[in-house]
Amino acid sequence: MLNRPNLIAELKSMSEAEKEQLANEIRTRLIEVVPQNGGHLATNLGVVELTLALYSVLDPFVDRIVWDVGHQSYVHKLLTGRNAQFDTLRMENGLSGFPKREESTADSFDTGHSSTSISAAIGFARARDLQGEKHRVVAIIGDGAFGNGMTFEALNDAGQITNDMIIILNDNGMSIASNVGGMSRYLGKIRTIKSYVRMKKGVKRTLLRIPKIGGKIVHRIQKFKASLRVLLIPGELFEELGCKYIGPVDGHNIENMMKAIEKAIFLGGPVILHAITKKGKGYQPAEENPSFYHGVSPSGNGVKVPSYSANTGSVLTELAGNDTRITAISAAMGDGTGLNVFKDAYPTRFFDVGIAESHAVTMAAGMAAGGLKPFVCVYSTFMQRAYDQFLHDCALQNLPVTVLLDRAGVSGLDGKTHQGVYDLAFLQSMPNVTIAAPCCVSEQTALIRLALESNSPFVIRYPAKDDSGLTEAFIAQYPVSYGKGVSLLENVNAEVLFVSLGQITSNVMQAARQLEDQGISCAVFHARFMRPFDQEGLLELLLHQNKLKLIVTVEDGVVSGGFGSVVSAAMFTPVKHTSLPILCLGYPNEPIVHGTIEQIHKRYKLDASGIAQQVCCRLKEANLCD
Amino acid sequence: MLNRPNLIAELKSMSEAEKEQLANEIRTRLIEVVPQNGGHLATNLGVVELTLALYSVLDPFVDRIVWDVGHQSYVHKLLTGRNAQFDTLRMENGLSGFPKREESTADSFDTGHSSTSISAAIGFARARDLQGEKHRVVAIIGDGAFGNGMTFEALNDAGQITNDMIIILNDNGMSIASNVGGMSRYLGKIRTIKSYVRMKKGVKRTLLRIPKIGGKIVHRIQKFKASLRVLLIPGELFEELGCKYIGPVDGHNIENMMKAIEKAIFLGGPVILHAITKKGKGYQPAEENPSFYHGVSPSGNGVKVPSYSANTGSVLTELAGNDTRITAISAAMGDGTGLNVFKDAYPTRFFDVGIAESHAVTMAAGMAAGGLKPFVCVYSTFMQRAYDQFLHDCALQNLPVTVLLDRAGVSGLDGKTHQGVYDLAFLQSMPNVTIAAPCCVSEQTALIRLALESNSPFVIRYPAKDDSGLTEAFIAQYPVSYGKGVSLLENVNAEVLFVSLGQITSNVMQAARQLEDQGISCAVFHARFMRPFDQEGLLELLLHQNKLKLIVTVEDGVVSGGFGSVVSAAMFTPVKHTSLPILCLGYPNEPIVHGTIEQIHKRYKLDASGIAQQVCCRLKEANLCD
Repeated sequence: MLNRPNLIAELKSMSEAEKEQLANEIRTRLIEVVPQNGGHLATNLGVVELTLALYSVLDPFVDRIVWDVGHQSYVHKLLTGRNAQFDTLRMENGLSGFPKREESTADSFDTGHSSTSISAAIGFARARDLQGEKHRVVAIIGDGAFGNGMTFEALNDAGQITNDMIIILNDNGMSIASNVGGMSRYLGKIRTIKSYVRMKKGVKRTLLRIPKIGGKIVHRIQKFKASLRVLLIPGELFEELGCKYIGPVDGHNIENMMKAIEKAIFLGGPVILHAITKKGKGYQPAEENPSFYHGVSPSGNGVKVPSYSANTGSVLTELAGNDTRITAISAAMGDGTGLNVFKDAYPTRFFDVGIAESHAVTMAAGMAAGGLKPFVCVYSTFMQRAYDQFLHDCALQNLPVTVLLDRAGVSGLDGKTHQGVYDLAFLQSMPNVTIAAPCCVSEQTALIRLALESNSPFVIRYPAKDDSGLTEAFIAQYPVSYGKGVSLLENVNAEVLFVSLGQITSNVMQAARQLEDQGISCAVFHARFMRPFDQEGLLELLLHQNKLKLIVTVEDGVVSGGFGSVVSAAMFTPVKHTSLPILCLGYPNEPIVHGTIEQIHKRYKLDASGIAQQVCCRLKEANLCD
Repeated sequence: MLNRPNLIAELKSMSEAEKEQLANEIRTRLIEVVPQNGGHLATNLGVVELTLALYSVLDPFVDRIVWDVGHQSYVHKLLTGRNAQFDTLRMENGLSGFPKREESTADSFDTGHSSTSISAAIGFARARDLQGEKHRVVAIIGDGAFGNGMTFEALNDAGQITNDMIIILNDNGMSIASNVGGMSRYLGKIRTIKSYVRMKKGVKRTLLRIPKIGGKIVHRIQKFKASLRVLLIPGELFEELGCKYIGPVDGHNIENMMKAIEKAIFLGGPVILHAITKKGKGYQPAEENPSFYHGVSPSGNGVKVPSYSANTGSVLTELAGNDTRITAISAAMGDGTGLNVFKDAYPTRFFDVGIAESHAVTMAAGMAAGGLKPFVCVYSTFMQRAYDQFLHDCALQNLPVTVLLDRAGVSGLDGKTHQGVYDLAFLQSMPNVTIAAPCCVSEQTALIRLALESNSPFVIRYPAKDDSGLTEAFIAQYPVSYGKGVSLLENVNAEVLFVSLGQITSNVMQAARQLEDQGISCAVFHARFMRPFDQEGLLELLLHQNKLKLIVTVEDGVVSGGFGSVVSAAMFTPVKHTSLPILCLGYPNEPIVHGTIEQIHKRYKLDASGIAQQVCCRLKEANLCD
């Protein structure tokens, strides 16, 4: 059925039984492809009926459907003509794991980071109404994303408008891991609504039946506010903010969901439709362990490599044993950032604030001002949400908050919204901030220890995987000294000097070897620190080079405003500046679409051969070699 | 009384009458200094009793008091030993207009941008409890700041903790202008609580008295959810999120406020104390026009200059007459950004989303995806809050959202938290984004027109004031062409070539004249666009220079990662690169403390004489001149 060309149109006249068959087909397809290619399984299993119900009423090619985060959009993709390509999910040149406007007109808005959908939907609704158009606008958002500040800003705005739009709150009781925070608890209370409503009615009935003592009971209830809540109606919190509320509805009952969607359309204005779903629904392993099956790795990729994230957790846990000031903060990413081991060892010093990076960083600033040594562990791409908080609350106040930026550099299969390639560029202008990037796990350990000694903001950025092959012998040979780089390959007669930063240094070392094989002699300077950059070390090194023709900077990030610009400034702005040409390698100013990290490195010529090739090319262009 | 050294200690034993006298003294001092020096008058008049009550119970030198935004901290400053310096408020080397840890130990956390206080307070409370300390932690936050996403993220976190802390919601019913959004309406409902509670009690009493029809009434009420709200208790929304709630309390009644604070301490855990205050209280002009008196300009500074903000409003309004796709979006800054004239002309196409920059930008992305041409008008410093939204939702999707960045460059008296000096650095790495900066108002007009033609994200950054003296003749002589710079001073025999961007070009032109007077010949290239940068134009220009010794970039922003780095990359990375030295002028990587714009330019040698002096210095150091 998934291959039928007019599936969306046919859905409107399908019987319940046919829809159930379709649901089965979708689940089969998901279970077939997702564990193979990697991606979000449990989430998509949970929205099969919800999506079928939505597209039984609306048309994604006409109406504007915004899938928050977008990792639950596989069912949407299967229903909108992409079943044939579904085997290429998340593969280079294949389907993206997220909605992409360039992929289908049914994808009305690209998503990736959490909690943008309601804002975008309000924009769509206003655009529609100003232009006199008639389509529907729907945002589908999970309960995890619901605790983010953007959700609140958008609901606050929605509370003052009359434009028709539907916000489907897809409530499965968890974000990636289990949910945290007051909103989550509130939703949990609504989820158990049946007993709740019964209790409410019961209480009232009792009160009304007993006229004499009834008054006393009401009085008593008034004294204990908490008890009064049994009189409340579900979703009142949203109604107080100005949005209508329908629910809770069983998100796996297509018939009921369709009725609820139609009711939401009938009501008009912004309406929150609260659907209860089960993550992993219909696939027992995923139902039983939805956190594990939230995102799955591509199968067959089981080689165990030393991981920066695992090291983060173990180093912080070890340090925390000797220093009670250390706390660790996560924004719903305790698992991915390696902090779970810290959480187990020091539960009272671990803080998961939910998907709320902005709050996480300012809260850490408060902790630091209060005498602690907080470590915020966050993916590079999500740190973008805390740009102002890090600048305004940590950097300007010069508070000792350490940010451990995981998944820095290209992060791979999640694609352009998740690449951690902007961090160096956006951090370098912040005052008081140290920025370091290790080239191997043992160097990361040394840098974390150094950060603990610091009385200023400190950022250490690294990818997930260390493929350098370096061991602790490396750091014994090249111990870390604050603000100092290290010459990993010395050669006073080098024609090419590489200046590199971070994990990509291992590609640079290989490239240098390849170039040497081609008769081009090289030297490699690993900067370790982008701020403060070891200008002195570099200029000293340049003094002793006899045959240098080209300086090459290499970074796993965008070139503009990145590491290369720091090196350039260090070389060209001093009075005694160098007049050598510089070649800055990294990513251009364009969205970096998905692929494995290796494929993306290759695509942008940042693997060893690519680097060597770019250097050769430049030398030839400039007539600097044969 | 304000000069007494132990005022905070004495407060504890003062009589009501003495406190009232003190309140009068404070108001007199505020009215004396603030209109003179400029600053926030109405806000501070509104918190006199609130602050007195707070410091009658707590000790700001021991307890951690976080003033949200911080513009209401003058009363706090007067009470904590800074009356003598109060005449220097917001003056260079004088008291800051915001809390500053370096100014007093009573200032526990620097604030400036909205809605950081609850996050910081949670950090303080956790730090205290982990270290076994005993002080109190209080955040004071206005109702305007309460609609921001950070507030929600923090409340959501507060809802899951038991650490003692007090959040004083200082509710005066307005932010800078009048408040918007669902939260504001909710608070408004609580403010009218007396009739509300009476109504609630009344309804219940009626119901209970009439046993037979009572049931029917309840049934009817159940059918109309809205009516049921009369049964609710104030602050229930916060209680649902997990915070205790006290209020509303009259924030001008010191006795009652003290009792409420003591009750909050007694309750324990996170408590929201809802105080109702009147902006401008006690000073009739400010009470009558609190929006006007929110921030006042220093008196005597009444020279009318062409303003970029005013021009923004009039150009957008004019363009909107011919293009119905144009919308304008503000985050509670309709006044400051010049948009009020647009709002009056096209009320249905103007959107004030409250202090919610993140939502504003993503909502604009939704509008653009829906076919409109949204213009987001926001101060440079507040755009920092929408870094991810602009990158993730506008830039990566290549949507035609135009951001008009007002108060770019140093913004002056508000100091380090408000300087708009980071925008160029954080924007330059974003894909698909055009970045332009006019050197005069008529160039701004031409750039706004160009942005309207664009199908991609477009940023135009400018300060408040155009002091270039240039008229429309300028733009007639040098019409705007996309991505092209202009030679404002041509001289093939120049020794120094300035490459400048934006309003600071007028300082550069003056500096060039001063240098010419000293016998150093100059040329000036105004880039207009930072992205795309006119590399071709610059390299072409360099080809024809005969005597060039030094290239000097000048920008009103931080140098690292800024405009200078773009120019450097354009000159040093091409195969046919220049070997000239480059001097990049702008701000160093340090917090830029307050002063007038002119004073700050002078401090960092970015006024005309300073620029000329820096150039001379460099030429001498490098032995390039006599």
